[in-house]
Amino acid sequence: MNEHFQPVALEHASRLINHGPTVLVTSADGGRRNVMAAAWSMPVEFTPPRVAVVIDKRTCTRELVMASGAFGLCLPGAALVDLTYAVGSASGRDIDKFARHGIVAKAGPVFGVPLIESGCAAWLECRLIREPHTEDAYDTCFAEVVAAAADARIFANGHWLFRGDNLGLQTIHHLGGGNFVHAGGVLRAQPL
Amino acid sequence: MNEHFQPVALEHASRLINHGPTVLVTSADGGRRNVMAAAWSMPVEFTPPRVAVVIDKRTCTRELVMASGAFGLCLPGAALVDLTYAVGSASGRDIDKFARHGIVAKAGPVFGVPLIESGCAAWLECRLIREPHTEDAYDTCFAEVVAAAADARIFANGHWLFRGDNLGLQTIHHLGGGNFVHAGGVLRAQPL
Repeated sequence: MNEHFQPVALEHASRLINHGPTVLVTSADGGRRNVMAAAWSMPVEFTPPRVAVVIDKRTCTRELVMASGAFGLCLPGAALVDLTYAVGSASGRDIDKFARHGIVAKAGPVFGVPLIESGCAAWLECRLIREPHTEDAYDTCFAEVVAAAADARIFANGHWLFRGDNLGLQTIHHLGGGNFVHAGGVLRAQPL
Repeated sequence: MNEHFQPVALEHASRLINHGPTVLVTSADGGRRNVMAAAWSMPVEFTPPRVAVVIDKRTCTRELVMASGAFGLCLPGAALVDLTYAVGSASGRDIDKFARHGIVAKAGPVFGVPLIESGCAAWLECRLIREPHTEDAYDTCFAEVVAAAADARIFANGHWLFRGDNLGLQTIHHLGGGNFVHAGGVLRAQPL
């Protein structure tokens, strides 16, 4: 769908979120799908590649993830800062955020999770590892990365390439309240 | 110790690591103390303020944290990129990294955890919440923040202030292999 996207070796998957970017958590179950922003995620293991992400138990995404056992982590580039804030501020129970914002998704290679490439730097398709206690006590969901890919203009051969000519693809890091840091400064999200 | 440090209200503590900075994990037990770099941490709850951090079970830090039930998360500014990489590359079993690098620590207000202010943007003193399963399976340690403070030149009134005049205090985000991103570009750590 995006000609620039290339597979990322699973042993390099942790590098995609090693520096703490805000991610879009994508999910689907039956005929429903959703996307939400999450600032709280991290790798927990290199091999096998495993991650942890906080998904509030009251969210539509949590419901879809628990039902399907899978989710995607998509890394929005700086050009998507407004969209990121928008999908982090509305509930998928009320609207189909893909349709609302014209977001095109492709099906993940392993589980068919909806994944976003346009405007994103990378994605990780993940299989939930059920941990009922930490899911309940800390809203923390553990998962194993089963596939990953990145836009080769900003991540190639296992390494990030932050340069002056790829500003729009650089990862964003949420400070709170719609304020993000990226590699070149602070962006302020505007309502869509 | 650092006149610029001011207390951070606990309800704002999560904002200190919301954007995914690399942290220095500090710990002490009996007459031993240690500091290591960790790229993998995140908030998991606003109130009470709780965090998760990955601390490998083979590290000296893990041993001290389990023995003492507490640790610090100190946020190195960009000026400390070399030091951060250095303390992430050596083991506290072999040397006292505070002495080796001339790092001055103050005692945390609640548990007396060694905390670093010079060159750091902020610190969080944390009480370990024992979770033996996730500690064992994912090296993921949960904790509650019991005190926090920040250099008012870069974090004040609950908000980050990334500006041209505080580059050296801006948080750093590890890409891997000693390459970090900060708010103004990419820094390459040099061996100390």
